[in-house]
Amino acid sequence: MERQDEPGGGLKHHDSAEELGSPPFSSCEYSRSPELEEPAKMRRNDNYLPVPGEEKNLDVDFTSTKPRSNESIPMKNLYADDGSPLYPQLGPYFSDGRRRVDYVLAYHIQKPSGIRRQSSRFGDTNFIRRLRRSLSMRSSRAPLQPKEDPEIAAQEQRTDYHEDDKRFRREEFEENLLETGLELEKDDGCKIPGIGFLKIHAPWNVLCREAEFMKLKMPTKKVYDVKQGSNVVEKIRLFIHKVTAPLHPKVDANRPDSVKSLSHPFSREKQHLTRCTKAKYSMAFTLFIAFCLSSQLLYEEWASYSVFYKYQPIGLIRKYFGEKVGLYFAWLGVYTQMLIPAAIVGVIVFLYGCATVDDNIPSIFVCNIMKQITCDQKSVLFMEHWKRRQMRLNYIWDLTGFGEEEEDHNRAEYEFRVMQKTMKQEHSIPKVKLGLCLLLIAVTFAIVFGVILYRISIKAALHISTYPAARSNIRATVKTTAAIINLIVIIILDEIYASIARWLTTLEVPKTDKSFEERLIFKTFILKFVNAFTPIVYLAFFRGRLVGRPGNYLYVVGSYRMEECAHAGCLMELCIQLCITMLGKQLIQNNLFEIGIPKLKKLLRKRKSDLDSKQEEELNKTMQRHEKDHFLGPFVGLSPEYMEMIIQFGMVTLFVASFPLAPLFALLNNIIEIRLDAKKFVMELRRPIAAKAKDIGIWYNLLRGLSKVAVIVNAFVISFTSDFIPRLVYQYTYSPDGTMHGFINHTLSYFNVSDFQPGTDPLQPMHLGYPVDMCRYKDYREPPWSNTPYELSKEFWAILAARLAFVIVFQNVVMLMSDFVDWLIPDIPKDISLQIHKEKILMVELFMKEEQGKRLAARDKDSQDNYTSPSSANESPPQPRSRPISHANCC
Amino acid sequence: MERQDEPGGGLKHHDSAEELGSPPFSSCEYSRSPELEEPAKMRRNDNYLPVPGEEKNLDVDFTSTKPRSNESIPMKNLYADDGSPLYPQLGPYFSDGRRRVDYVLAYHIQKPSGIRRQSSRFGDTNFIRRLRRSLSMRSSRAPLQPKEDPEIAAQEQRTDYHEDDKRFRREEFEENLLETGLELEKDDGCKIPGIGFLKIHAPWNVLCREAEFMKLKMPTKKVYDVKQGSNVVEKIRLFIHKVTAPLHPKVDANRPDSVKSLSHPFSREKQHLTRCTKAKYSMAFTLFIAFCLSSQLLYEEWASYSVFYKYQPIGLIRKYFGEKVGLYFAWLGVYTQMLIPAAIVGVIVFLYGCATVDDNIPSIFVCNIMKQITCDQKSVLFMEHWKRRQMRLNYIWDLTGFGEEEEDHNRAEYEFRVMQKTMKQEHSIPKVKLGLCLLLIAVTFAIVFGVILYRISIKAALHISTYPAARSNIRATVKTTAAIINLIVIIILDEIYASIARWLTTLEVPKTDKSFEERLIFKTFILKFVNAFTPIVYLAFFRGRLVGRPGNYLYVVGSYRMEECAHAGCLMELCIQLCITMLGKQLIQNNLFEIGIPKLKKLLRKRKSDLDSKQEEELNKTMQRHEKDHFLGPFVGLSPEYMEMIIQFGMVTLFVASFPLAPLFALLNNIIEIRLDAKKFVMELRRPIAAKAKDIGIWYNLLRGLSKVAVIVNAFVISFTSDFIPRLVYQYTYSPDGTMHGFINHTLSYFNVSDFQPGTDPLQPMHLGYPVDMCRYKDYREPPWSNTPYELSKEFWAILAARLAFVIVFQNVVMLMSDFVDWLIPDIPKDISLQIHKEKILMVELFMKEEQGKRLAARDKDSQDNYTSPSSANESPPQPRSRPISHANCC
Repeated sequence: MERQDEPGGGLKHHDSAEELGSPPFSSCEYSRSPELEEPAKMRRNDNYLPVPGEEKNLDVDFTSTKPRSNESIPMKNLYADDGSPLYPQLGPYFSDGRRRVDYVLAYHIQKPSGIRRQSSRFGDTNFIRRLRRSLSMRSSRAPLQPKEDPEIAAQEQRTDYHEDDKRFRREEFEENLLETGLELEKDDGCKIPGIGFLKIHAPWNVLCREAEFMKLKMPTKKVYDVKQGSNVVEKIRLFIHKVTAPLHPKVDANRPDSVKSLSHPFSREKQHLTRCTKAKYSMAFTLFIAFCLSSQLLYEEWASYSVFYKYQPIGLIRKYFGEKVGLYFAWLGVYTQMLIPAAIVGVIVFLYGCATVDDNIPSIFVCNIMKQITCDQKSVLFMEHWKRRQMRLNYIWDLTGFGEEEEDHNRAEYEFRVMQKTMKQEHSIPKVKLGLCLLLIAVTFAIVFGVILYRISIKAALHISTYPAARSNIRATVKTTAAIINLIVIIILDEIYASIARWLTTLEVPKTDKSFEERLIFKTFILKFVNAFTPIVYLAFFRGRLVGRPGNYLYVVGSYRMEECAHAGCLMELCIQLCITMLGKQLIQNNLFEIGIPKLKKLLRKRKSDLDSKQEEELNKTMQRHEKDHFLGPFVGLSPEYMEMIIQFGMVTLFVASFPLAPLFALLNNIIEIRLDAKKFVMELRRPIAAKAKDIGIWYNLLRGLSKVAVIVNAFVISFTSDFIPRLVYQYTYSPDGTMHGFINHTLSYFNVSDFQPGTDPLQPMHLGYPVDMCRYKDYREPPWSNTPYELSKEFWAILAARLAFVIVFQNVVMLMSDFVDWLIPDIPKDISLQIHKEKILMVELFMKEEQGKRLAARDKDSQDNYTSPSSANESPPQPRSRPISHANCC
Repeated sequence: MERQDEPGGGLKHHDSAEELGSPPFSSCEYSRSPELEEPAKMRRNDNYLPVPGEEKNLDVDFTSTKPRSNESIPMKNLYADDGSPLYPQLGPYFSDGRRRVDYVLAYHIQKPSGIRRQSSRFGDTNFIRRLRRSLSMRSSRAPLQPKEDPEIAAQEQRTDYHEDDKRFRREEFEENLLETGLELEKDDGCKIPGIGFLKIHAPWNVLCREAEFMKLKMPTKKVYDVKQGSNVVEKIRLFIHKVTAPLHPKVDANRPDSVKSLSHPFSREKQHLTRCTKAKYSMAFTLFIAFCLSSQLLYEEWASYSVFYKYQPIGLIRKYFGEKVGLYFAWLGVYTQMLIPAAIVGVIVFLYGCATVDDNIPSIFVCNIMKQITCDQKSVLFMEHWKRRQMRLNYIWDLTGFGEEEEDHNRAEYEFRVMQKTMKQEHSIPKVKLGLCLLLIAVTFAIVFGVILYRISIKAALHISTYPAARSNIRATVKTTAAIINLIVIIILDEIYASIARWLTTLEVPKTDKSFEERLIFKTFILKFVNAFTPIVYLAFFRGRLVGRPGNYLYVVGSYRMEECAHAGCLMELCIQLCITMLGKQLIQNNLFEIGIPKLKKLLRKRKSDLDSKQEEELNKTMQRHEKDHFLGPFVGLSPEYMEMIIQFGMVTLFVASFPLAPLFALLNNIIEIRLDAKKFVMELRRPIAAKAKDIGIWYNLLRGLSKVAVIVNAFVISFTSDFIPRLVYQYTYSPDGTMHGFINHTLSYFNVSDFQPGTDPLQPMHLGYPVDMCRYKDYREPPWSNTPYELSKEFWAILAARLAFVIVFQNVVMLMSDFVDWLIPDIPKDISLQIHKEKILMVELFMKEEQGKRLAARDKDSQDNYTSPSSANESPPQPRSRPISHANCC
């Protein structure tokens, strides 16, 4: 897999395949073979425009090997005297040593051995999908030939294709590649048996054409000062930058630029304006080095735990992996940053809560509400902050104006199905799908109910047992084991649901890649969300509310009484459940799935490999970069990473009122997560095809939706799971002296022991030493001596009304404040909008200057004409200001 | 005022003034003089691209008058044999009869007479503002000279500037105009004394340059079929179109196009692709006619009450007035259309409600809720529908991709103030502003309270009076007069508040035009909203709730008891108030302010005019178009129109639950309003400067905000202003037999007459013929014989809880459904997104073809080269696929 960084690479993921024609990819065996190896990244940044090494292609006869003195001068530093590259790590070249390899396709030459076939097939389907995506622009235009879909055929593992047929298709495909202007070379000296590599080089004119199609923004020669506001502001900014210097990664891209060059959509006609003409030779070498170091730099400044406290080098990440991955890490960074204050507040609230656990101070309530509103506001602020950050990145990455062009390719499978006319038989799929989804949700509910039963029965069993030691630890034991069972179930179901969601989405055969992804994400999100939150929602809102009352208990599955809450409410249990779920999920998923299993796989692969370690080491030394990279894992997209974070975001925002430590846990997890993902991306996966993206897409909508749901959920959590509202109501309406004295008495109702139904009365009526004929229980019900004994009392309704009123007020206040914050904070940061404005004016000025230059030239020409034909000059005296210029061109 | 339609006109509102320099506008007396007369409209539509009459400017010596045979052939049809235009209404030309007038500036030559000065000064300040806006791009770049602001100076009416100074500045300005490439002609034969006109012609090359700057999308030669879906869909579409044919205006633009030509941002280098080259001559004439007729067409097919049932010719409106005005009318059309089903449902509900007014059927409640949810959904659907319509218009009008370029010019006054350094003294303005706003809101409240007092006192007075006739009509009289007083107050305050808001915003000196407009709109909206809705909110939520109870009434201003509601709730009164407010506002504002006052003004102007009618008629005949238009009213922006509609939207959405006829009233009003506005725009105002706009801006946000508030307001209206919830609660919990029998009894509490406070007991204790010692009143309170007499009872709290629960459920269900609808309906209509996709592919194909053509040409050239130098050909055999093309150009 190549890690070169020529701008040529990027065209592969856009429309390099303009003229490729679909046959090689809708054909079967061959198209399963070519693997899109890691592409070079398209560079759009001002600093990296010039194309290093490109000068070698200025000559038409690139087959000649002798260097041209006038063009390769700056490059010869890279080569030893014998012509071999001094820095082999800078990336391989074609056999002429002059044309750089921009891209590598891999294909099977003969049937590979079992293991290898396995591993490469795994890669195949993924790479094919990606390759097809980049080619589907073409295929959606050209009439589809009714051939079998390669992916399906691949899955069916048919092997009845002849080598000849394969070679024929491959050659056809290669011809199409050549037709687009790409240059190819086959790698025959491959060390991996059964795999052939096809190296591709994109020459300068192809790059120019593609850049023009893509309307890539290129820096022009025009450079301007970025004013950073007034003097004081600038000083403060510099001071802050100085103070936070150790937090910034040691990457040049992160230093504050005081000078920026104007960028303009690339056009060959306007090329004289861009910087590349002038700066090309002088900058080629330095940039070349800089780029090849970026992988190393990324590792040192990003993918290492030792830099966990530092900002991420987002610019570098984006240059190396593309905008889409860059945005993910930028988002993760912003989210983690926003967790820091939330975690601090959470810890303080938790400690304060622990210290004052038995104080009946309504100020806790007020404090709690304030915390809650702060948290909800924080989640709004987070969205706003992210919007602005995204805007800033869009500007820095020259993506403004890109949005309209976003592509949405038809999926090959969809077109294949349309061709096969197999779509009509799938009319029943929506119903099946819905049914299955409901079934899965029902399974989740059933499991939660199972856990409840487990808790009830274990508790009953332990209650009956007479060992005092067992009894004393009942609560803790039961709670903890139940929570752990829940956790395990959640983790297992998560994996199952993810596969089911993918399977269902495949069944649906969505038309485009984008809709496929969105549907998959939506389904996975729903299932995972229900899975993760059902036990918590039960604990928060239903437990202890379905108990019945003394004399009329609710019994489930025969004679088990429904669970009650402790006197202080179910908050403690909710807290334990949240704690275990969060910590456990993170630990297990991070450690086991993201570190453990890949390591295990590697170990297994090594063991199964026929080569012993020495041989392998030797091979490793001689293998080229793309051969080594062939064995890395494929890149499967960002969805799993985002999904994990969104569920965590849900935990933090939905139940922060119950579990103030959630932000802290999330923060700790994310600090690890960033570096873990970074390591994975840099070291263990094939480099993904760089994809342009302006925003995080559907994830932003999911986040918005979650923060909306969070408001109402939190309102209910505060008002229904705690004693705060009853306390307030008591203090201000029922309390005789305005204090909390008598509150406990107020919350307890009377029960006459003689009203027990036969068989349910206590086993030991004398366990207090005297006969009990009246007891108390926690509820607001009429006393036995009222006209309507054991009915819900007036206090119950008053407190319910207060609780509901609180929910309404809370929800609407938070929503109003959110909208206000949304309205208050402009989406585009002020300095960016100022700079955009300034750039536009400068651009107009630049063109006006050019325009005037043209006009002057035309005038000069005119006066020459006048000189040759003075008669016409007499008829029309030159009027420079209104002279129509180049009418031949302008109609 | 010119009504020509050359594409040249539009450049004035963009950056025609690139090189103008600011001096003439920051100078005083002169810059008050040039008035931007109505500009010609920039045409971007495919059908109207070619520039009629432009061919005359192909020759450099445009001063020559003899027509060139090869270029003016198609145009000579327009001229009689003596060279005078056959169609003088087609628009005036320069004195050479060849260059069309694109734009006219007006200025004062000498001191005008008092009256005329008044009228022209009115025009001045507005026109200057608009001219400055179009020039501010330049002025924000150039260093401002510390000269006095023209507007302020104009307001101060200083007259101490010399004619010479004015002429000097004018000449400087004209020179700058010439510098940009515009061509000027002074109109000396002006019939209006004291006013000079400066005609401007924009030649082709200037148009080209500006089009390139603006990235105007132009149709290319490439034409493609617009597939309208499958055969069945297409047939249905055609059928619907046939059925609704009479509803469509007879304008060509509205026929369904089966063919569309690809459009591409204009670029002189790519000009050979655009249609103008080829089609120019053939289309010039027809288009010329078409355009000049558009004003007439607009009048017949749009600005006439006789076509009230038809769709609006939006395409034509946009061509004539620009996108901003076009979007307003499109929005108004969509809104009016959405009112039709709402009005129908409303009428049905109203009639059903009238028929079953005394039935105690909870099904009304369910029906009401359903209606309400439908209504809220409708308002969401309206937003969605509008988003899609906007998207479609953006596509049809070739505005996709325009958004990024939107400009935000600094206001001249801001820059003037910065120059004058008068900003610092205004630090106290925010406080003053806030204070004033609060004061105004307080005034509104006070007035509402005043009206309450009026009602109470009149009622008391009438009660005391012993005339039975008076007493029987008490309720109706009081309600109606109070509502009318409210209405008059609202209308008067509306006008006052509008001026105060404008004044406050001017005090703030916002930096840019956009922020000025937004702040003004925001303030006006808040004030008008509070003004319009305070009486209604009082009626809906507070009236009858602050009454107290028998024996403990609430008294205001001495001994007046607060108003009670009728037994059925305050719904009826709310209904009357809403009805009178809506109808009255619409009638008075439409008839008086929009028709009456302008007519009155015209009449006054005529009377004061020194000319008698005959003279005037004669003058009218000889006056040129721009001279006549000089006397029309100025265009003051769309804000008042939008504001009126938004307040109406608020009425319809916020209180539709209380007043089901609101949509009907709004519908009737809007049908008139559309044609009224149309007439005003076509006939009575100077044609506005065409402004590009992609959406309706801040108004969309206000609409969104309103529909959010509507949800919660409606939830409260339903649950608190009606008996529905108590009925439901009674039926399902208290009713002994599950029917509504005994409900009235249930809602009434007992009161012991002996508990009246001394002096407040009834005057006629025996008026029923027997002594009353126990009476009933409408409230949920404990009876006198309970432990806590006259306390709120358990039923009260239960019903309150039910009401609040209903609010929560209703709000969240509606919000969820809204979000779901929002998510379900894609923002971009499917056919449009398909077409955009198709166009993009076609565009790429077009360019690839061009690219290949270039490559082939290069190959031909190469083989020629090879022929001349065979040695080099041997060294490098031509490899067409990878040949670097035009390297000289590409670095």
